[in-house]
Amino acid sequence: MREVTIIGAGITKFGEHWKKSLRDIFVESALMAIKNAGVDHIDSMYVGCMSGGLFVVQEHLGAFLADYLGQSPIPAVRVESACASGGCALRAGFIEVASGLSDIVLVGGVEKMTDAEDVTFALATAAEQEYEVFHGITFPGLYALIANAYMKKYRLTREHLAMVAVKNHKHGSLNPNAQFQSEITIDTVLTSTLVADPLRLLDCSPVSDGAACVILCPLEMAKKFTDTPVKIIGSGMATDTIALHSRKDLTALKAVSLSAERAYKMAGIKPEDVNVAEVHDCFTIAEIIITEELGFAERGKGGILVEKGETALGGRIPVNTSGGLKSKGHPVGATGVAQAVEIFYQLQERADKRQVKNAKIGLTQNMGGSGASSVVHIMEVV
Amino acid sequence: MREVTIIGAGITKFGEHWKKSLRDIFVESALMAIKNAGVDHIDSMYVGCMSGGLFVVQEHLGAFLADYLGQSPIPAVRVESACASGGCALRAGFIEVASGLSDIVLVGGVEKMTDAEDVTFALATAAEQEYEVFHGITFPGLYALIANAYMKKYRLTREHLAMVAVKNHKHGSLNPNAQFQSEITIDTVLTSTLVADPLRLLDCSPVSDGAACVILCPLEMAKKFTDTPVKIIGSGMATDTIALHSRKDLTALKAVSLSAERAYKMAGIKPEDVNVAEVHDCFTIAEIIITEELGFAERGKGGILVEKGETALGGRIPVNTSGGLKSKGHPVGATGVAQAVEIFYQLQERADKRQVKNAKIGLTQNMGGSGASSVVHIMEVV
Repeated sequence: MREVTIIGAGITKFGEHWKKSLRDIFVESALMAIKNAGVDHIDSMYVGCMSGGLFVVQEHLGAFLADYLGQSPIPAVRVESACASGGCALRAGFIEVASGLSDIVLVGGVEKMTDAEDVTFALATAAEQEYEVFHGITFPGLYALIANAYMKKYRLTREHLAMVAVKNHKHGSLNPNAQFQSEITIDTVLTSTLVADPLRLLDCSPVSDGAACVILCPLEMAKKFTDTPVKIIGSGMATDTIALHSRKDLTALKAVSLSAERAYKMAGIKPEDVNVAEVHDCFTIAEIIITEELGFAERGKGGILVEKGETALGGRIPVNTSGGLKSKGHPVGATGVAQAVEIFYQLQERADKRQVKNAKIGLTQNMGGSGASSVVHIMEVV
Repeated sequence: MREVTIIGAGITKFGEHWKKSLRDIFVESALMAIKNAGVDHIDSMYVGCMSGGLFVVQEHLGAFLADYLGQSPIPAVRVESACASGGCALRAGFIEVASGLSDIVLVGGVEKMTDAEDVTFALATAAEQEYEVFHGITFPGLYALIANAYMKKYRLTREHLAMVAVKNHKHGSLNPNAQFQSEITIDTVLTSTLVADPLRLLDCSPVSDGAACVILCPLEMAKKFTDTPVKIIGSGMATDTIALHSRKDLTALKAVSLSAERAYKMAGIKPEDVNVAEVHDCFTIAEIIITEELGFAERGKGGILVEKGETALGGRIPVNTSGGLKSKGHPVGATGVAQAVEIFYQLQERADKRQVKNAKIGLTQNMGGSGASSVVHIMEVV
């Protein structure tokens, strides 16, 4: 396998883009990435998108977006694993460059959610329709079940959940592309509307429009384009049961630990070697458990990790410096690629006010459903 | 890149599976493929599906189907390029094995269309929503535009189109998995209901449920599993504009010729070296043009090719021995993988009454939309 690097990145502001269509925002981020990389052509393209069909009534996004980007007739396909679609698209691009089949590959993620008639219905197609959604539960409910089980087992407090939102909003306030750039307090979270007990509105990531792209090429070509290519040193993907009721332990996210284990093994590093991470905080409880599954905290200690400020900017292992899904926004298919964009910026020391000092190794963790898919990438500045 | 082979295949009957769900038919074909290959594990899985969201209100099919197949926690993702989803999934599996990342990869295609509320609406999401479908046109209309332009330019007769349907129904009558196993006559086609002039009901592939799977492994491992592995010697993908109005020539399918050119180049062969082919005859006019784009006939001579019986069983280059999309059925996401299953059977001499004698090299061509995506694979028995 050839070694693979990221040599350019682009991202739109996340939020409500009423005056732009899905293709507009995708192309905006793609042109930014192409310009940043300085490439004069693209060999192949992957698009991560959860549901063009249900959100904007447009499937076939590979050819559709390659065309609008002026890149027909390049090979272009869409990759989908619910909210992990972006991460899986990155992995597909990584594999294609590693294989030697293509040199310059554009990996994009996009979702236009605010146009949809029923976003909650569309998102719920990532859960088990026949055995979960049929009974009326949707994602806030599923994650509330996880939160309740976790809080009973480990005595995590309601305040710990709020601390995740407060931290990520603080980070988001430093990110001009974040959907929410306002700081919040624990009290704001605790008094926000109850959605699914114990989760309140400010425990939940928002509905967003947005797109993000990166350009990949083999390591041996990378220095032609940038002095600081970012090498993908590990890629791990794993799946779990779609339905929560099939899992032995509601408080663990097995696909996360396994995808991380596979990525750490490929990279030849340990959790303590990671300097900065973007993780899938679709709900505050998710970040708590994910930081444990990634090895940043012991089992049951994810709450203490955020309480001690270890995952905040300036802490031991800053998590979601971009603001995370919570504050930056969560256009579902774009999220996995947006995470890679943030780590790329951090490792190239382009993260401005949210720059982590001496960040050499970064990690992204992108998740689908209530943890049925997880994909982890580990990156190192060359 | 490592050399990649197909070592096992499985397929369900295509048709209306009222008593089986999407997961049932996928697992049925997957278990058949696993048994046929004789593998004791799978490293990774790709699922081609056009729109789980719009047809059965279930996205996230990678994890969903890996789970139901008892294969969690393997990496599993869905690949989508409209009706070319199956062929693109095969290409993704091919690239993963070629890269060295995984050894045993299951590639499946599936679609459950008969449960959908509005199949025509769902299928139309593969066309350009804002500039084509908005005006009321759907796929029969788009292909009718192509047919009219072609018939005007090359003086193809209405009977030539019917000959494609007659041939493919004859082939389908020999395939126990085909949706339609009855022969038809030119007169039956010409007197069937007019759908979009000049296309009639029997010019159109049907709405179908079905699934197909193949198992891939590197060439160096293949002989452990079968005496006659089928090597994938070429893989080519290309895209074109989604919308017909953006194309210079309605009578050509540029993505088809380009994907074929790429696959022929990788395989190091010419069109005349191909002994048997499965092509994307979603409408009769499509097969006429595709046989030209693949190099089996000169430009404008696709009608004469079928008239002379050259693409029939026993002819120079039998096309769609399975019955094709027209007669075997067209569960859209499954089609590309089903084509590979048919070529696998042909090259292993397991095609029974529809066996092509001395078939050494086979080709599959799978298409999305009105030709915006095309993926070609070339296979050779080892």
